[in-house]
Amino acid sequence: MKFSCSKDELMNALNICQKAVSNKTSNPLLEGILFKTYDQTLLLRSTNLEIGIETIIDADVAIDGEIVIKSSLIGELIRKLSGSEVFIETNSKNQVKIDCLMSNFTIKGLEADEYPQFPEVIDDYSFSVDADVLKDLIRGTIFAVAVIENIPVLTGVKVEISEDNINLIAMDGYRLAFRTAKLMNALEEPNSVIIPSKSLSEIAKVIAAYSGEIVVKFSKNQIFFEMDRIQFTSRLLEGDFIDYKQIIPSEKTSHVKINRKLLIESSERAALLAREGKNNLIKLDFNQEQLILTSNAAEIGDVFEVIPIINEGEAIKIAFNSKYLIEALKAIEEEDLIINMTTSVGPGVLLPQEGSEFVYLILPVRVAE
Amino acid sequence: MKFSCSKDELMNALNICQKAVSNKTSNPLLEGILFKTYDQTLLLRSTNLEIGIETIIDADVAIDGEIVIKSSLIGELIRKLSGSEVFIETNSKNQVKIDCLMSNFTIKGLEADEYPQFPEVIDDYSFSVDADVLKDLIRGTIFAVAVIENIPVLTGVKVEISEDNINLIAMDGYRLAFRTAKLMNALEEPNSVIIPSKSLSEIAKVIAAYSGEIVVKFSKNQIFFEMDRIQFTSRLLEGDFIDYKQIIPSEKTSHVKINRKLLIESSERAALLAREGKNNLIKLDFNQEQLILTSNAAEIGDVFEVIPIINEGEAIKIAFNSKYLIEALKAIEEEDLIINMTTSVGPGVLLPQEGSEFVYLILPVRVAE
Repeated sequence: MKFSCSKDELMNALNICQKAVSNKTSNPLLEGILFKTYDQTLLLRSTNLEIGIETIIDADVAIDGEIVIKSSLIGELIRKLSGSEVFIETNSKNQVKIDCLMSNFTIKGLEADEYPQFPEVIDDYSFSVDADVLKDLIRGTIFAVAVIENIPVLTGVKVEISEDNINLIAMDGYRLAFRTAKLMNALEEPNSVIIPSKSLSEIAKVIAAYSGEIVVKFSKNQIFFEMDRIQFTSRLLEGDFIDYKQIIPSEKTSHVKINRKLLIESSERAALLAREGKNNLIKLDFNQEQLILTSNAAEIGDVFEVIPIINEGEAIKIAFNSKYLIEALKAIEEEDLIINMTTSVGPGVLLPQEGSEFVYLILPVRVAE
Repeated sequence: MKFSCSKDELMNALNICQKAVSNKTSNPLLEGILFKTYDQTLLLRSTNLEIGIETIIDADVAIDGEIVIKSSLIGELIRKLSGSEVFIETNSKNQVKIDCLMSNFTIKGLEADEYPQFPEVIDDYSFSVDADVLKDLIRGTIFAVAVIENIPVLTGVKVEISEDNINLIAMDGYRLAFRTAKLMNALEEPNSVIIPSKSLSEIAKVIAAYSGEIVVKFSKNQIFFEMDRIQFTSRLLEGDFIDYKQIIPSEKTSHVKINRKLLIESSERAALLAREGKNNLIKLDFNQEQLILTSNAAEIGDVFEVIPIINEGEAIKIAFNSKYLIEALKAIEEEDLIINMTTSVGPGVLLPQEGSEFVYLILPVRVAE
């Protein structure tokens, strides 16, 4: 293999591919990135067997070939080069010669024969979504997945396609996050998949700097995200997600309008003491015009916060884990929001003032009066 | 105690004082910051018994008093307040009431009687230095102190005052860093102290945002740095520092002028491989017009870098620990610098092209040919 390419384009492609490289693996190939040239193009591929990434950049190719190079080494090395064009050449001993300006490296590569293939794209189903919309949907739900794996599907985010809507849903048994948005191109019939949260957080990083259409294809076990010159794939989680629609209550007895920023700030101050006291409990006392938010930690102290509200329903006292409340509030962008509640043992439901773009549900903590 | 003050000024003062608070201590008082009011002023004091800080801000004081408040709690709490003015009041049970806008905290304080005093300022000797100059001197030397304490004085930085110069010197047995600058007000006669590097790094943080004159006073065991409304003190290290002047060679057989940025970049690339190979060795082969810099790591690869130089002396081959070379080069600001050497077993001496504001000396590593 012998080619040259832009240092910046190569660096950018390596940054993307590194997101699928195994950190812990006993297989040296999986610590590497596959370099493969064809048709005046350099293809880079990486995989940790759970997710995989392929990306291509333009190259000036003299001799086609392929080799695997240790990801951490080649990434740092290319990043530290001073020139704008990189010359790379391999020999029959799998040595890789890298030249750039007055720098000359020779490093050991690995035979590419055994490097895992990119899964064959099976597009049983296909839709497309705007990259910025997908970023918002992921950011708005991923924090609510279950960390402990006793119910494996809850470590993933459910992606639901219905007509021209895409819904993302995550829940961990104590809270639920639901976001919805419009698709660019819809599926012919409704369908859904469950994506491991780790994969979703990596695709979020890969698309962070990307704008435009993302084509999503999936089969029973595998999902593919296709951008201009990047393909990302992930295994899917199998199993049935809990029916979230049944969990979200339709009735309400308290209907509170509140300023999001004020509630975040007060909750964070109260959480300070709650954390010092090694519990995360904050108590919310909603009357008609005020929310009185309190928290106390034995031996440390207590806090008392007042926030103006408009409660069109009944007064209610309820207690939440401050972490769950604050994370949900921070996933919302709106200045004001609605909190619906029924009783002190029923969930708090956070909704937009208008529309239905999000639902955050938080189970309360029962406290002795 | 009962007073009010600006939230931002209090926050700023707490940030400064937190630098002297113990992270690990079995004495709860030392986890706290002393609050003391007098003459419409709030004084804050902190100490870990090695260093101490006192700072004052304006306050509207109704009742004078003093109390100790846990540093981590009060710092976070004040930072998270939304208002601009904070009202603080204590009662006879050492409870501290903190009010700001619609937030009301009550936290537990500690009796101030037993809180350590700030050491009495003994100004046996006194000089003054510009804050920006002191920052540069510290940054330019502190990285070279010994980490291991088998020679305690080498864990400190020597500060030498001679006529109107201030010199800082650090060394760890493998390298030496020397910086010199002009004083604003000189000592009457030469003198020197050794400041623990930990103290010096904290004073560097305290003065980071400060410009102007710093008055430095010291006695045999204690040093004081005085700024507008801040006093910083540290214990001094006792013992004799190695005579650094004897270590810096006066002769040279190779006299090389080189671009600093090119040498840093090449050294960093070479260090990449050196690090992978678990040694930090880079080899420098200076001829008359080129430096050829190489490094190799078994089983991984090698690197070959070429940098143009002007060598007015003899050709020389020498090897350095890349970390020592790079750290010294990064402490320098000049575009070009001079490297003087004698033999492959004598030190490399980094000097400015003109003047004498710094000397960095690095012992070479002996390598088999």
